Amino acid sequence: MARMSTTEQIAQLVESIRPKIIRWRRDFHQYPETGWTEFRTASLVARTLSELGFAVLAGRNAVKPEARMGLPGAAELREAKERALRDGGDPFWIAKMDDGLTGVVGVWDTGKPGPTIAFRFDLDALEIAEDTAPEHLPARAGFRSRYERVMHACGHDGHTAIGLGLATLIARRSDRLAGRIKLIFQPAEEGGRGAKAMVEAGVVADVDFFVAAHLGLMARKNKQVVCGVSHFFASTKIDVEFKGVPAHAAFAPHEGRNALLAAAALAVQLQGISRHGGGDSRINVGVLHAGEARNTIPSRASLKLETRGETSEVNQYMTDEAIRMIRAVAAMYDVSERIELVGQTIAASCDGELVRLVREAVCGMGQGLEVIDSLPFLASEDATYMMQAVQDRGGKATYMLLGTERKAGHHHHAFDFAEDVLPRAVEIFAHVLEKIIADHAG
Amino acid sequence: MARMSTTEQIAQLVESIRPKIIRWRRDFHQYPETGWTEFRTASLVARTLSELGFAVLAGRNAVKPEARMGLPGAAELREAKERALRDGGDPFWIAKMDDGLTGVVGVWDTGKPGPTIAFRFDLDALEIAEDTAPEHLPARAGFRSRYERVMHACGHDGHTAIGLGLATLIARRSDRLAGRIKLIFQPAEEGGRGAKAMVEAGVVADVDFFVAAHLGLMARKNKQVVCGVSHFFASTKIDVEFKGVPAHAAFAPHEGRNALLAAAALAVQLQGISRHGGGDSRINVGVLHAGEARNTIPSRASLKLETRGETSEVNQYMTDEAIRMIRAVAAMYDVSERIELVGQTIAASCDGELVRLVREAVCGMGQGLEVIDSLPFLASEDATYMMQAVQDRGGKATYMLLGTERKAGHHHHAFDFAEDVLPRAVEIFAHVLEKIIADHAG
Amino acid sequence: MARMSTTEQIAQLVESIRPKIIRWRRDFHQYPETGWTEFRTASLVARTLSELGFAVLAGRNAVKPEARMGLPGAAELREAKERALRDGGDPFWIAKMDDGLTGVVGVWDTGKPGPTIAFRFDLDALEIAEDTAPEHLPARAGFRSRYERVMHACGHDGHTAIGLGLATLIARRSDRLAGRIKLIFQPAEEGGRGAKAMVEAGVVADVDFFVAAHLGLMARKNKQVVCGVSHFFASTKIDVEFKGVPAHAAFAPHEGRNALLAAAALAVQLQGISRHGGGDSRINVGVLHAGEARNTIPSRASLKLETRGETSEVNQYMTDEAIRMIRAVAAMYDVSERIELVGQTIAASCDGELVRLVREAVCGMGQGLEVIDSLPFLASEDATYMMQAVQDRGGKATYMLLGTERKAGHHHHAFDFAEDVLPRAVEIFAHVLEKIIADHAG
Amino acid sequence: MARMSTTEQIAQLVESIRPKIIRWRRDFHQYPETGWTEFRTASLVARTLSELGFAVLAGRNAVKPEARMGLPGAAELREAKERALRDGGDPFWIAKMDDGLTGVVGVWDTGKPGPTIAFRFDLDALEIAEDTAPEHLPARAGFRSRYERVMHACGHDGHTAIGLGLATLIARRSDRLAGRIKLIFQPAEEGGRGAKAMVEAGVVADVDFFVAAHLGLMARKNKQVVCGVSHFFASTKIDVEFKGVPAHAAFAPHEGRNALLAAAALAVQLQGISRHGGGDSRINVGVLHAGEARNTIPSRASLKLETRGETSEVNQYMTDEAIRMIRAVAAMYDVSERIELVGQTIAASCDGELVRLVREAVCGMGQGLEVIDSLPFLASEDATYMMQAVQDRGGKATYMLLGTERKAGHHHHAFDFAEDVLPRAVEIFAHVLEKIIADHAG
Repeated sequence: MARMSTTEQIAQLVESIRPKIIRWRRDFHQYPETGWTEFRTASLVARTLSELGFAVLAGRNAVKPEARMGLPGAAELREAKERALRDGGDPFWIAKMDDGLTGVVGVWDTGKPGPTIAFRFDLDALEIAEDTAPEHLPARAGFRSRYERVMHACGHDGHTAIGLGLATLIARRSDRLAGRIKLIFQPAEEGGRGAKAMVEAGVVADVDFFVAAHLGLMARKNKQVVCGVSHFFASTKIDVEFKGVPAHAAFAPHEGRNALLAAAALAVQLQGISRHGGGDSRINVGVLHAGEARNTIPSRASLKLETRGETSEVNQYMTDEAIRMIRAVAAMYDVSERIELVGQTIAASCDGELVRLVREAVCGMGQGLEVIDSLPFLASEDATYMMQAVQDRGGKATYMLLGTERKAGHHHHAFDFAEDVLPRAVEIFAHVLEKIIADHAG
Repeated sequence: MARMSTTEQIAQLVESIRPKIIRWRRDFHQYPETGWTEFRTASLVARTLSELGFAVLAGRNAVKPEARMGLPGAAELREAKERALRDGGDPFWIAKMDDGLTGVVGVWDTGKPGPTIAFRFDLDALEIAEDTAPEHLPARAGFRSRYERVMHACGHDGHTAIGLGLATLIARRSDRLAGRIKLIFQPAEEGGRGAKAMVEAGVVADVDFFVAAHLGLMARKNKQVVCGVSHFFASTKIDVEFKGVPAHAAFAPHEGRNALLAAAALAVQLQGISRHGGGDSRINVGVLHAGEARNTIPSRASLKLETRGETSEVNQYMTDEAIRMIRAVAAMYDVSERIELVGQTIAASCDGELVRLVREAVCGMGQGLEVIDSLPFLASEDATYMMQAVQDRGGKATYMLLGTERKAGHHHHAFDFAEDVLPRAVEIFAHVLEKIIADHAG
Repeated sequence: MARMSTTEQIAQLVESIRPKIIRWRRDFHQYPETGWTEFRTASLVARTLSELGFAVLAGRNAVKPEARMGLPGAAELREAKERALRDGGDPFWIAKMDDGLTGVVGVWDTGKPGPTIAFRFDLDALEIAEDTAPEHLPARAGFRSRYERVMHACGHDGHTAIGLGLATLIARRSDRLAGRIKLIFQPAEEGGRGAKAMVEAGVVADVDFFVAAHLGLMARKNKQVVCGVSHFFASTKIDVEFKGVPAHAAFAPHEGRNALLAAAALAVQLQGISRHGGGDSRINVGVLHAGEARNTIPSRASLKLETRGETSEVNQYMTDEAIRMIRAVAAMYDVSERIELVGQTIAASCDGELVRLVREAVCGMGQGLEVIDSLPFLASEDATYMMQAVQDRGGKATYMLLGTERKAGHHHHAFDFAEDVLPRAVEIFAHVLEKIIADHAG
Repeated sequence: MARMSTTEQIAQLVESIRPKIIRWRRDFHQYPETGWTEFRTASLVARTLSELGFAVLAGRNAVKPEARMGLPGAAELREAKERALRDGGDPFWIAKMDDGLTGVVGVWDTGKPGPTIAFRFDLDALEIAEDTAPEHLPARAGFRSRYERVMHACGHDGHTAIGLGLATLIARRSDRLAGRIKLIFQPAEEGGRGAKAMVEAGVVADVDFFVAAHLGLMARKNKQVVCGVSHFFASTKIDVEFKGVPAHAAFAPHEGRNALLAAAALAVQLQGISRHGGGDSRINVGVLHAGEARNTIPSRASLKLETRGETSEVNQYMTDEAIRMIRAVAAMYDVSERIELVGQTIAASCDGELVRLVREAVCGMGQGLEVIDSLPFLASEDATYMMQAVQDRGGKATYMLLGTERKAGHHHHAFDFAEDVLPRAVEIFAHVLEKIIADHAG
């Protein structure tokens, strides 16, 4: 082995754990857990990290409880916890996770001087009923979701498996490393609900280099590696409820207070938030439910909406305007309103220096990879909170894309990716890690 | 008995069947069936009428299949039929009812010359989950609905029991009667879906005098009897579905076709149908559901709406305007629309001559009844189709209200009435019947 | 003359002043003055009344200044006054009219005991450019409006002439009369702006019988006389201004505050005020002007709107809802709003007793008149304030229609009526007056 | 003179005609003419070019009549022409301009081989009433607009003067030049109405290098020169008229067809055109007028609106959506619509090679100029049609900004610029011209 190059060594090591990586991924895929209910997933991650020799931060050490957004109700959290215990979650770690403190950080201190380098992996699944068609590999190969209407339809099961693969490599190659390495396993990325609470718990407060990544998205070919992205949309997720007064629509319509009309007027009016000269924006009311019966003035309505902006400032403008409109529409129809902020992401930019370093690390791997400097992201990610926090203290951050062919788009019930991307990602991260250390340690 | 007056005879007869009337009502109350699924109720009515000696019209003889509005789906009809068979419905009569031909008419031909007189009773229940509180008599006395989320919350169980009580009196007092008597048991009154199909099957084509009635409503005291009503609202019930194209709300919002916005704009715009100089009108969107996910341009939306007018012409104007707006809004958002007429009632007026005759009949009963000539109805009823058809051929029609105290309003989950109203109603109808015969036969 | 009947005497007297009545009307027609600017008309009325021997109330004795609604600007009032002086108005009376106190009351006290009886005539014209076509009699016969864009297009010129004709009869037949008679000449009826201010000045505070009338409207035949009307719409006239912030629509649209969108949203939303179970209602935005330039976010918008209700309560509901919506829409678009109440009428009902008395008086005249008890008015009139005030103190009131064929509808630029209606109206009023006195004096 | 450098020669020449340039500008400023009515301005330009020895294209040789957008009415055009003749316009050239063919092109053929180089200057003014305050230089110095409500508030008077200055230099330095030079004087730039019609007349069909420029805008300092711009918004200007049916708002509102509501609904709905994933967009309804009287269902409404897009494709999407909405709203309110396209611009980009060449030319001038490669334009210009046409045939194009301090923003009634920018611009253009020839001729 002495005569093998670093590249060969890493490749061989990754090859040796390839079956394990695939196994992890397929296990997580069968037990998908939505944001803040990742008790099983997170507890198994914590146990594995611990077994590998990582110091593990969990519970309040990983997540600031009151900074969580879009937390499910108490009953749902309790049931998820019980289910996790039934389905093989680790009781020791679940006990630390309280009512949904499902973030986990593995810390590897080499004891040698060097930078603190963090990688972030997200854990959560989506409320989508997974495809049952035989063309869908998880169905055919027997690792389809066991939970009704929940599915890993965005690849976070893969992300988690990559994280554990990287952890294994770190443990095996510790003597070649320096500084401190943190593997951040984040809950509730969907809806932009989890990253902020981990930032506020301090998990990136000491980080000099930060790398997050997503498989797929705009990187649709198997060997593409995108070293950085631009055009994150800052975003805000808001739930609105209007409560009016029911009345018989023929006898006494004037005695009603019409929550359905308030919701409808709001949906229409929100489109009327002016475009912003400072950058592109988005507004969407994705879901609207209102009313009780055809012949009753509707007294209840709920909406799920989101705003986005090319910059955090533009998004803040969209959010402020939306909230003023919600209140005004409530006043217009004399109904009461409840506005809940259930998710938020900010805009961020990748550091050119780190993007170039990643590029060099990946180009050094050979293997016919197609290396792309940067692509526009045009969506929202709450890893931006971590990027911003690292950059605020003078660190560097980037967000990578790991190419893979997909059977169907993200968030589709037939979403699936080429599993080869998983070991390849572990290998890429190992190279990025060692390149950062090579350039910045000692 | 020879020396008893007619009034005394009828009173005694009603008293003797009072327990049976209450039993009928409580039985129907426990097995509430919504419009076009009244297999159990209608089959038991048919059997009872038949046993009493009535000729019974059922199936296509009572209901014109293609004139039915708001018919449930085939699966729902099939399940309701099976449930009726399980729960004591009469298989002989159910067999005649096909896929929801749940109207029944009992015909009593006295063989003596005289007018044809019809009474109409409605059979159907509502999709409301009945109250479980002990204050609610049906819950306390053990005759609460056995079906989840279905309830006799408008008193049609009482109407049906009154009809069977009246049938019993007719059978017992046949020798004192003349002409022909028709007892019409109508399905699907809620939503204005059933009367038209019975009219088109010809059930009132030979009727000279027509009487329909409702317990409660504006007659809120126990001994009130209202001989006629004014101000029926003609009404139209419409279901609308919009189908657009989903798209990611951040990447490619312009590729979506937004069904939620179409529905919202429609709800707002429908209010903009101008008031009509020819009379009062109403418009209500009672239910709106739209959208799939917060970050997806919504591709599906459905609305349940209704229009009303003080005259059939005003209502027709409202309906025409609404339909034009639905189509225009679909064009505006480039979504496809489906418009389904699921119910309709017309306006009608009670004949003064028959109202006076009813008044005299009821006044003759004594018993401390509070007799009111007429009240404004201010709601919709499809008995108006029958009234109109009878009047079109030169007959006379009225619509009565039978006073009762109520625990909660109609369509409320705690609705209940004073059961005394049932035998009293039978007695009143018997008097009205015999008064009409007395005045118009031979 | 002694042997002539009262009917013959009145007929002859009216016949003798017929040319004078026509002359008055045609003079007023040439100098039409809009609400609160009737300086010329009112001053000539006051002079004529005074010359006939009436005591004349003018200025603050006839109009409470601060109760006026929809007062024009100071410059417009000043110019109107100067024009009136130039065009033959009476300087003595104009001097009393200050800044638009253009109401006049003639009081005739017979000195004999008897009721106080008031007749009301309105003085004002409309902002309409009169037809110049030769088919239009005023154009052909040379008495077309001399003022640009102002026209007597509702017949108030006729009303004023009738009032002076009646005054003449009263003066001539005083010895046959009893009690006190008040002839009220009211400004600013259009828009419902003037009656309230005369009521608050006390002009009907002593009135026992009150009669107002309008020529034409639903009485479209020459010899129709309608003794009372039903279905006055109570109404409110509101002017709204929104003021926002302009901005370049491409560079910085978000810096604007869009007053045009606020006005547009308001127009649409006002339609969404629910129909009222207590009676028919109306809402109309009749005029909307907004914006400065195509590429500027509009910063200014103004609307003219009105609400109506079958009852004063329904109209109050409409007004309250409208005002809440105006404020809410301003909040929604972050613009400032100015709401000005520029007119108001209430609902009222005619007293059956007085309607019958009028009927008898008119029927007694013969002449082939078609006498109609009552018609629905379905519009708004501020004479209702006077009716209500009289009824509140126990008096009786009615509102009559005086039939006439018309060349075009009221408020049309070719509106004209058959001048025969004028002497006929004088005659009718004389009969009504003497009938009231006959029945109620001494 | 032989020993003077080219730079010195040009500087001296410009200095010698500085008074003439200022005189031209102040003359044009006093006689501002809006789009397609620039008879006086264009005729004087044509005469001057002709006198200098240019071949002059006018009338149909310069403008394709049917490709003009936003043409004023025939009466307005006729009056403008008469006014131009009265106010010193050149009758010979005006005669060629027919009903508003007010474009002029001066062609200078050196007879030597070389590229065809075009400069474009716009001629038109705005409908703005010029400031009368003494702080406003044109007011103080006596060259304020002589036409009511028309003003050169965007600096096109300066552009025209620069064009004539450049023409003078070309005539004087012809022996040092090569190829062909075209000076394009374009009408109706405001609203994007004129360039397309000149392109379609073929005026740039032979052009290899194209330079357009604007004084001021984002170049707010006196010595700034911006060599190219990015982010032109493609734009479309649309006028909409709705025609409905009037009706009395109380008697018969249902007989009306409400054009005001259609316009209001359209204004609100247009905001609902979804943002586009392909780039930033804008929509503005800048002006809305509707309605006749408060108590009449409004039968007329007009709107002035515009769409913009970061790319021509995005703008086309906005326009297509807007037009579908206009039609749908008309259908919704059952009113007729008239849609008129009154202006259009496309997006375009400056050629890097030409931008660099301009930079070198300007940098060579010295004089302490602040040379900026490029700024985002963020507005619309129809010079883009010429740029695109030149690029389509393989030519190069750029759009420059010429820095000047301003007293108030463009389109403001107190807009004014530092006149020094005019001779400086002539000098800059001369350098750019000679640099292009130096690099590309022979």
